[in-house]
Amino acid sequence: MSDLSRCSLNTATVKHATLTEAVDAAAGAGMGAVGLWRHQVAEHGAEKAARIVSDAGLRVSSLCRGGFLTTADDAGIATALDDNRRAIEEAAGVGTRELVFVVGGLPALSEPGQGPRPDAGPGDRDLVAARSRVADRLADLAPFASEHGVRIVLEPLHPMFAADRAVISTLGQALDLAAPFAPEVVGVVVDTYHVWWDPRLRDEIARAGRESRIASYQVCDWNLPLAADPLNSRGHVGDGYVDFPTVTRWVAEAGYDGDVETEIFNSEIWAADPRETARTVGERYARHVLPHL
Amino acid sequence: MSDLSRCSLNTATVKHATLTEAVDAAAGAGMGAVGLWRHQVAEHGAEKAARIVSDAGLRVSSLCRGGFLTTADDAGIATALDDNRRAIEEAAGVGTRELVFVVGGLPALSEPGQGPRPDAGPGDRDLVAARSRVADRLADLAPFASEHGVRIVLEPLHPMFAADRAVISTLGQALDLAAPFAPEVVGVVVDTYHVWWDPRLRDEIARAGRESRIASYQVCDWNLPLAADPLNSRGHVGDGYVDFPTVTRWVAEAGYDGDVETEIFNSEIWAADPRETARTVGERYARHVLPHL
Repeated sequence: MSDLSRCSLNTATVKHATLTEAVDAAAGAGMGAVGLWRHQVAEHGAEKAARIVSDAGLRVSSLCRGGFLTTADDAGIATALDDNRRAIEEAAGVGTRELVFVVGGLPALSEPGQGPRPDAGPGDRDLVAARSRVADRLADLAPFASEHGVRIVLEPLHPMFAADRAVISTLGQALDLAAPFAPEVVGVVVDTYHVWWDPRLRDEIARAGRESRIASYQVCDWNLPLAADPLNSRGHVGDGYVDFPTVTRWVAEAGYDGDVETEIFNSEIWAADPRETARTVGERYARHVLPHL
Repeated sequence: MSDLSRCSLNTATVKHATLTEAVDAAAGAGMGAVGLWRHQVAEHGAEKAARIVSDAGLRVSSLCRGGFLTTADDAGIATALDDNRRAIEEAAGVGTRELVFVVGGLPALSEPGQGPRPDAGPGDRDLVAARSRVADRLADLAPFASEHGVRIVLEPLHPMFAADRAVISTLGQALDLAAPFAPEVVGVVVDTYHVWWDPRLRDEIARAGRESRIASYQVCDWNLPLAADPLNSRGHVGDGYVDFPTVTRWVAEAGYDGDVETEIFNSEIWAADPRETARTVGERYARHVLPHL
């Protein structure tokens, strides 16, 4: 039996399971942790959610997610800051220090996955300015995160989401944005789906390790053809194109010794029995990831 | 009337037009050039294709495309080199020095847009090795290109095509691969669709200019939602999320004074009258690109 103590099931992988079902599936598969989402924590309250996880003998490897920091207007900024302060409190309450941030897309956006607003002007497409506002909002939030012992974990998303979900597109860029802050306050996640293609990946993972900023290693595969909603186009580890031995070795060489979360958005996988999905996640982790950790 | 002398219609934008129809549409819209594809040149022969273009008072801004250099087996390498030598001869024959290269995806590929071969092993997913083979093939081909006065123009493709079409995903990576060769032998293309998201874009365009390697500036927009085949998901300049004033200014500041090709793969646009499409291309160029060149 493989050692799955560092293997974590992100509950988005079993989207239609309740928190208890997801936790049972992860524990039943022999895993050591789960990654949670805020709506689940809200449903039970942080204290009870934490107990559901710990009663099953598991840890919380991360909480998803804060972010959406690119808005330019004062009211939108105030709302985003409020919501992120609540997310920081929830992470502390549920017993994880790692709060994953998806930083948001362009102000030109109508809604995720869709075209620009009809009234969007050149300024609403200004990617450089949107990225600069992310830096400003991190400076606003870092002291609050620090007080709560929570780390803001920047997630670079695949460049195909740069317009509508995250203007952070590479690990190097995430590290540059994290640089002004202490590594226990702002970190990064290495998610294979989002960064596997990056020609600078080896160097940037090594840099993330040197700077003590790797807060999470998330794995899932790059499948083709892309799903109609490309957000849901990920696959079980080993089904697609990602070179898991190599990327995992880079992460291990960078000194990362934390949990490895599997986070898959895929409607076929969501339709499967959560216990079956958790078993497959554990098997794929044992075959493609664990030997290289 | 705007000056469209640097505006070029890549004939892929009017995919269903004959070469003569495409050239007439570009000339009728007041453009100065067309970008051609090899199958069109093959249909007429290089000499006649060149005459069709020059008789309309146009230049050939580039030829698409060579490449597909990632195969690992000897027979595949020999075939790829042969085909690319023919492409180099065709570029010279049709009167352009700029031959665009799409370098190919992973050996794990079954076919573009599809999942990996069932028998693909870890080595077939080795992106670092695939990229290294591209460097080797460029060294094989560079002397032949140089003798023919043709430049191999490396095209970084959007990272969502890294598995199945091009293991060159950023302008910086293309410049690194070009570095061992003279700038008149290996260059790069800046295609907004593929590189607009890159946080290092400004620096890399400036570097490309300093190194005299910008062989082409191609424009089309990043539209959402992605088309079922994301290859065909591009839009007319101004319809999507790309910040054309900013990117165009960076290209101009880098000293680029060549043609600006519009290359759009989009089945709705392909269904339109080529003359109508060419007029729209010219209008969008005049509105969103020309003022910033």
